[in-house]
Amino acid sequence: MMGTVYLVGSGPGDPELLTVKAKRLLEEADVVLHDKLPGPEILESIPEERREDVGKRAGGERTPQSAINERMVELAREGKEVVRLKGGDPFVFGRGGEEAEYLAAHEIPFEVVPGITSAVAAPAVAGIPVTHREAASSVSVVTGHEDPTKAESAVDWEALAATGGTIVVLMGVGRLPDYTEALREAGLAPETPVALIERGTRGGQRVAVGTLETIVSVRDEAGIEPPAVTVIGEVAATRERVIEFLANESGGEP
Amino acid sequence: MMGTVYLVGSGPGDPELLTVKAKRLLEEADVVLHDKLPGPEILESIPEERREDVGKRAGGERTPQSAINERMVELAREGKEVVRLKGGDPFVFGRGGEEAEYLAAHEIPFEVVPGITSAVAAPAVAGIPVTHREAASSVSVVTGHEDPTKAESAVDWEALAATGGTIVVLMGVGRLPDYTEALREAGLAPETPVALIERGTRGGQRVAVGTLETIVSVRDEAGIEPPAVTVIGEVAATRERVIEFLANESGGEP
Repeated sequence: MMGTVYLVGSGPGDPELLTVKAKRLLEEADVVLHDKLPGPEILESIPEERREDVGKRAGGERTPQSAINERMVELAREGKEVVRLKGGDPFVFGRGGEEAEYLAAHEIPFEVVPGITSAVAAPAVAGIPVTHREAASSVSVVTGHEDPTKAESAVDWEALAATGGTIVVLMGVGRLPDYTEALREAGLAPETPVALIERGTRGGQRVAVGTLETIVSVRDEAGIEPPAVTVIGEVAATRERVIEFLANESGGEP
Repeated sequence: MMGTVYLVGSGPGDPELLTVKAKRLLEEADVVLHDKLPGPEILESIPEERREDVGKRAGGERTPQSAINERMVELAREGKEVVRLKGGDPFVFGRGGEEAEYLAAHEIPFEVVPGITSAVAAPAVAGIPVTHREAASSVSVVTGHEDPTKAESAVDWEALAATGGTIVVLMGVGRLPDYTEALREAGLAPETPVALIERGTRGGQRVAVGTLETIVSVRDEAGIEPPAVTVIGEVAATRERVIEFLANESGGEP
């Protein structure tokens, strides 16, 4: 009897932003394969004997994707119901697509359970809508892991700037100087509003706001650290207009 | 004693894809202001005496946004706990940003409760990851409501095509011929994979796959109707590689 693998998104970190389905599957699964990205609040709610950390190996180095793939197949073939838990959404920069293809190629039934991506939720709880009827007709999401100065960088910052819409960068604290410069070179105005949301939706959330020109110093002064989401575009200025009445936040400004 | 307004996303339609927080707030709220977008499965779970449909007026015409704004303020001033329920995420083409600004301007405390956007979830449950390490380093989301042949169209299809990433069009069934042509003129290859997902995550979900060149005929032959999400890019081809083992779907192909 073959088990099923559930590729489940844990959402942005607040345990109440888990979906009803994710919560049920976490309670029912025989094994939950996870790394650190879902965050301690969610991981600690899963009994230890049913959790398996596939983020780091004993030596401290990162588990290769191939080992995670093989482990999912092995458990399903033992008849286990397996949750592969991922931070945010499994199909938004989560390598869920690769895992789905691997499972299908090995004839393992699987199901996809979307989660709320931090790209939308972290700005939202900070009072920033990623689209706006007047200010942003599109939103583009990229990761900041890539080096925009490398010729082979897959992210086309010039085209992103040309869309005129909001740009959200996931995992983009470290390379902030590189891509803000790339966007300015591509013609975005230096006064374009930019917001950084650290630990969005989680305890200890912090938000820092500046412009394309000032945001690197703002980051340094506020000491913003990963995990954080960067929002670039007019919408980032919404926060200051609503923050006084935004009940999501009880202070905690950097 | 002032009430709070919760701007809540109901997710893509499957009631199990509500967040734990949305579910709790729907149970606790004094009044739920909604239109038809959350879908009958979710709306019917709310007792009728606590629901208020602000989507249509008695005469059948659409309620103006100003009337919805005023109703939220009125209820909060009566001390009511108000849920303003929106399909998908309130801040992804949901006019939640405008409502947040109106509430703040009227000194009403409000909270934002993100939901899963159909832009990610509908493709996901159809076996399509919107990003992929090899095939898509960015995902851009737009609505198909706008007329791309109008000079003042705010969506820059040429720039979107130039990003090289996945393009997701919400509410884009009707104008499919217009924007597929705009994208071809912008240089996207005619053989670029395109998928249409009708009623994504809901009962009666249907999926139709083609290319930029064929998708209009595919839509017509399959009879795909709103609400539907369009996914344009290499990732749309993932579906055929995984569909046999995708447990989300129990058939129902058009």
